[in-house]
Order: sequence, then C-alpha cells, then structure tokens
Amino acid sequence: MSPRPHAPPSVASVAGWTLTILLFASFVGVQRSAPSPATDPLPAWYEGDSKRAIVAFVQKVTQPGGEGFVPAAERIAVFDNDGTLWAEQPMYTQLAFALDRVKALAPLHPEWKSQEPFASLLKGDVKTALAGGERGLFEIVMATHAGVTSEEFDRIVKEWLASAKHPVTKRPYTEMVYQPMLELLAYLRAHDFKTYVVSGGGADFMRPWTEAVYGIPPEQVIGSTIKLKFEQRDGRPVLVRLPEAEFVDDKAGKPIGIQRHTGRRPIAAFGNSDGDLEMLQWTAAGAGSRLCLLVHHTDATREWAYDRTSSVGRLDQALDEAKARAWTVVSMREDWKTIYPTEK
Amino acid sequence: MSPRPHAPPSVASVAGWTLTILLFASFVGVQRSAPSPATDPLPAWYEGDSKRAIVAFVQKVTQPGGEGFVPAAERIAVFDNDGTLWAEQPMYTQLAFALDRVKALAPLHPEWKSQEPFASLLKGDVKTALAGGERGLFEIVMATHAGVTSEEFDRIVKEWLASAKHPVTKRPYTEMVYQPMLELLAYLRAHDFKTYVVSGGGADFMRPWTEAVYGIPPEQVIGSTIKLKFEQRDGRPVLVRLPEAEFVDDKAGKPIGIQRHTGRRPIAAFGNSDGDLEMLQWTAAGAGSRLCLLVHHTDATREWAYDRTSSVGRLDQALDEAKARAWTVVSMREDWKTIYPTEK
Repeated sequence: MSPRPHAPPSVASVAGWTLTILLFASFVGVQRSAPSPATDPLPAWYEGDSKRAIVAFVQKVTQPGGEGFVPAAERIAVFDNDGTLWAEQPMYTQLAFALDRVKALAPLHPEWKSQEPFASLLKGDVKTALAGGERGLFEIVMATHAGVTSEEFDRIVKEWLASAKHPVTKRPYTEMVYQPMLELLAYLRAHDFKTYVVSGGGADFMRPWTEAVYGIPPEQVIGSTIKLKFEQRDGRPVLVRLPEAEFVDDKAGKPIGIQRHTGRRPIAAFGNSDGDLEMLQWTAAGAGSRLCLLVHHTDATREWAYDRTSSVGRLDQALDEAKARAWTVVSMREDWKTIYPTEK
Repeated sequence: MSPRPHAPPSVASVAGWTLTILLFASFVGVQRSAPSPATDPLPAWYEGDSKRAIVAFVQKVTQPGGEGFVPAAERIAVFDNDGTLWAEQPMYTQLAFALDRVKALAPLHPEWKSQEPFASLLKGDVKTALAGGERGLFEIVMATHAGVTSEEFDRIVKEWLASAKHPVTKRPYTEMVYQPMLELLAYLRAHDFKTYVVSGGGADFMRPWTEAVYGIPPEQVIGSTIKLKFEQRDGRPVLVRLPEAEFVDDKAGKPIGIQRHTGRRPIAAFGNSDGDLEMLQWTAAGAGSRLCLLVHHTDATREWAYDRTSSVGRLDQALDEAKARAWTVVSMREDWKTIYPTEK
C-alpha cells in the first residue's frame, strides 16, 4: 500500500493526446458507423467491445416486447466505488481521510503517541501502521469515525473533502472520479435504471457527496456500517456512532448488503477487484439479461496499472472468472478516451 | 394478544352505512366548501383537523420559494406498517403466517410436539405459546422464516398471502389495508415524496407484496432482518436465511434503520403505537417543516378500538407525547369515511 510514483500528464500532452484521439475517433467513426458525437451517450469511451456490450445490453433490456426486456422497476445497477468509480491508488481515499483525522484528533489523545497503529501513523509510517492488514485499517476507521453524532460526521466528511487533495495529483478527491463511468451512470439512469453504490467503504463516508458527484442519492448507497445508538441529548434525539463494527460490505457481504437493502437482484454489476466477485456472481446468476463488467487498471501513464499482486484493489480470481464467463473487461488504456472529468 | 370478539359488518349494513356517509359527505361538502370529489386527493378522509393538517403540510413543503419549502429529493415519508397501513388485530399478520408455517412444517419436526412454544401452537393455544412475550414471537419467527434461500422465502410468502384469510373478517390480508392511508401514500408520491415502510415486521415478509398493495417498491421497505449467508449450491450462488436475529427495527431501532438505509432524516412520519415513538421524535427534531401523525384505533364497529392497555399495538406514551407536542392524531372513527378499500 506504499505510494507509487506517478507523473500526471501535462496540459500540453493531454491537449495533444486529445487531438490525436479526436482525429482517430473521427476516422473510426467513418469506418465503423459509430454514433455521431452529438448523440453518443458515452463520448469518453472508444468504440470497441466494451462500449458495444454496454449499449447492446441497454438496448436489449429496454426494448418493449423484446426477448430480453426488463421492466423499469427491476433495472437495478450496482457499482463498486473504490477503483470502479474513483481512483483507489496509492491508498483508499477513506484511509487518507482516517489518517488526516488521526492527526486532527491526536492532541485529544496523548496516549496515541505510544499506541499502535496510531504511533506509527503519527510518525508518517503508514506501512507499519497497516501491517495488520484490513483489521488494522478497520481499527483506525473505528477510532476516527465514531464518538460523534451522524450529523457531526456528515459535516466532518464534507469539510475534509472540500480541502483535501490527492497525494499524487494534488487534485480534490472528487475530481479523481472516472469520466467514462459518470457517463455510464447517466446513460443507465436515462434508461430508467436505478443506480446504486455498493462499496466496502463506509456508507456514511460516501453519502455526503455521492449525489453531487455521481448523481446517486444517499439512500442508494450501500456500504460498511458501524453501530448507531439512539439517545436524547438536551431533549433532542441524536444518533451516536459507536466504535463497533456492524457490517462489512465486501466480498460475500456485497450480495448480502444488496439483498438487505433492496430485496432485488441487480441486472448489472460493475467492479474492479476480487472484492466484487460475489456481487458479480450474484448478479450473473439471475434469469434473463445481465451485464457484468470489470474495470481493469491498465493505464500506467494516465492512471495506474495493477491487478493480480496489488495490495490495494487486487484483481486476480475475478479476472479469471470474468474471462471464463465472458464478462466484459474494460481496459482503461484501450477503452477510455479520458480518465478524469478535468481532461474533457 | 388473545383474539377479541369482533362482528364484521354485513354487506347490507356496509352498503347502508356507505350511503349514509355519502349523503352526509355531500352535506358536509356544501357546508364546509370541501374540495370537489373530482379533485379531492383524499376522498376517504372527512374534512377535519387531520386532513387539513396533511394538506397544509404538503402545500407548505411543495410551495417553491415558500418558507417551508423542501426540495423533492429530501421529501422522505416513513410509514409504520402494522396498525398504520393494515390491521394488526387480533394478531400481527406475520404471526398468523408463522403459525401457519409451524403447522405446514410440523410433519418435518416431530420434536415440536413436545417442545415449546411449538407444542402449544400446534394445539391451537397461541396464548400459552406467546407467554414469553416478544422473545417467544421472535423464536417462532426464526424457526419458520429461516433455513430457506431468499428466493424460496419470497415464494412462500407470496403463496401464503394468495390463500390466507383474516381470522375475523375472512378477507385476504391484502384487503385489510386502510383506504385513507393508500390515498395518503399516493397523494404524497404525487407531490414527489419518496414513501417508505419502516416496520418492526420482517423486511423480507413485506417486500413480496408492498409494491402491489402500497405502491412501495421493495427497496423502500425497512424492517427487521435475520442474518443471510452467501453460498454456492450446485455452482449457483444463493443467499441462505440463517435462524439468527440481525436487527430489530422497532422503537429506537426505527430511526437507526432509517439512517442506515437512507442517510436522510424523514420530514413526515406515520405510526400508531409506542413502537413508533422514537421514529416520530427523530422526524420531529429535524429543522424545517415536519408532519408527525398517529393513527388512533377508535372504531370498535368498523375496525377495533384499543390504545393504552392493548397487548398488540399499545399506544400510551406516544399518545401523551403527541398531545403535548401537537402532533396530528387521527381518530379512525371520526376522520375516516371508509376503512378498507372493499368498502369504497
């Protein structure tokens, strides 16, 4: 989980590259009868197998009387967040938030100076602090996400996101989202899909901003949760966040979280790592038309390239299963014209 | 929780009574300048304080530029189910389902003949079986609601509802819903409210039918849950229902369930018992326009009359708080022209 070097493209190189792409896209357009730019709902996607699979699926499920038709109410699409809708390198954004919270709260916790994993974190040694794996991560999350009311936490997240910058690109995290996926979300909603985030990250960490950034309202965010306690403070009821895990919405937890939250099986699922495999399997196993898609991080120049051996967002077993079952595998390098909205 | 005697009105008396009401309603209409029947969105409600409070609230939150305006995305309305949207006497419908399931499953469980609470249930002695209170109820629910997949349970509930009849009225349970509340749900949705069921009953017991009966899709049903387990059966993933309580969506559990599910505080809440008090308090404590409403069961002729001492749907502390805080208290006898849709 150590940061890796990354050189963001310069404005000049992006402009030049975009021009090349535009010319190439025009050429491809003539050759392949691609949709005109004016009507193309997915302009950040190159014409190719991935885009064709998406468009064909949407046409099939929305064709009244067609064999693959799915009523609008059943058009549920689920999206992993980290690595699928926004960047997850060099570390999960929620971890960056937790590290900043440890620093902010440290003056109130003198004992952290000699208590792991906080001691290492405060020395800037993230690697040692997280040597315990996901359990260590979860402990840090507990210490920094609990002890406040639901309203206070909402405010803390919003304030952090308004000022925090990605450690490599120095951009706001909310600009580290993937333009092609924003288009895909809007395209599905334009065809009466209900789009959900289904993330291993905390539901209450995502809800303050998903509507503004993804167009996904808080009630369509499914994520990991900690326990809440209802109590009266000065005659006013509050929900207090307890430092106790309640539900981990990852791996087999994802289909469980979806079922608990919606009571419906999705017809489309989008992920990027082994943590999404069970969600994809659950989606695929339903009757009728299905779309299962993996985002494969293959672009070391514009984003990051990683898969089978990455400590963040490992994609190994799910990649094998996607190939065996002919799920759609998006190569960021070859399928996406732009990565981030700011490159548009 | 023992059944109480109840004489359902005969067809003749209902017809005569309905005629009286229609005549009376016409008269009232002339006297009080009530909305014309053609445009009245709540025709099963008498003109009176309750109806006026509802209409005034909806007008206030939907008036653009008005002081009480609430954006459509934040118009969340939560409804208790048992006793608020459908009848809960002489016993909760889900308990009737569980009793029928015990009978259906008894041949597979010879040990139940000598094991409480099943032995008493199989002898028809519901009172003894439930002497342990809610805990006993929950044990019966566990034994009859688990051990199957989510899909199988969905089918079992649908099949039961298609044939089961209310023990007193002999009507299908899905006809034991309250016409005025169906109108209220539709009225709120017509003003861009998102309507939720928030019930102490099982989420997966309600989801198979809430869309058809209430117009509330399964993803807007919040209820009690048991644990699920993801597993592969013959190469196909299933979610198995485990006989283990996960979450009790009652009392203080209601605001917690709402927060976990939606991340939003409702602006309107509807209940009928002390189990809804915390949900009403949580709703009332938000800033801006709020509507908190209790259905008071006051009609011993057309439905049931019960409140402070009832073992099912006790309304005591919440009634005091409603009066102290000027929440809307609906008297079924005086506020509702019709109770059930079949009386229309």
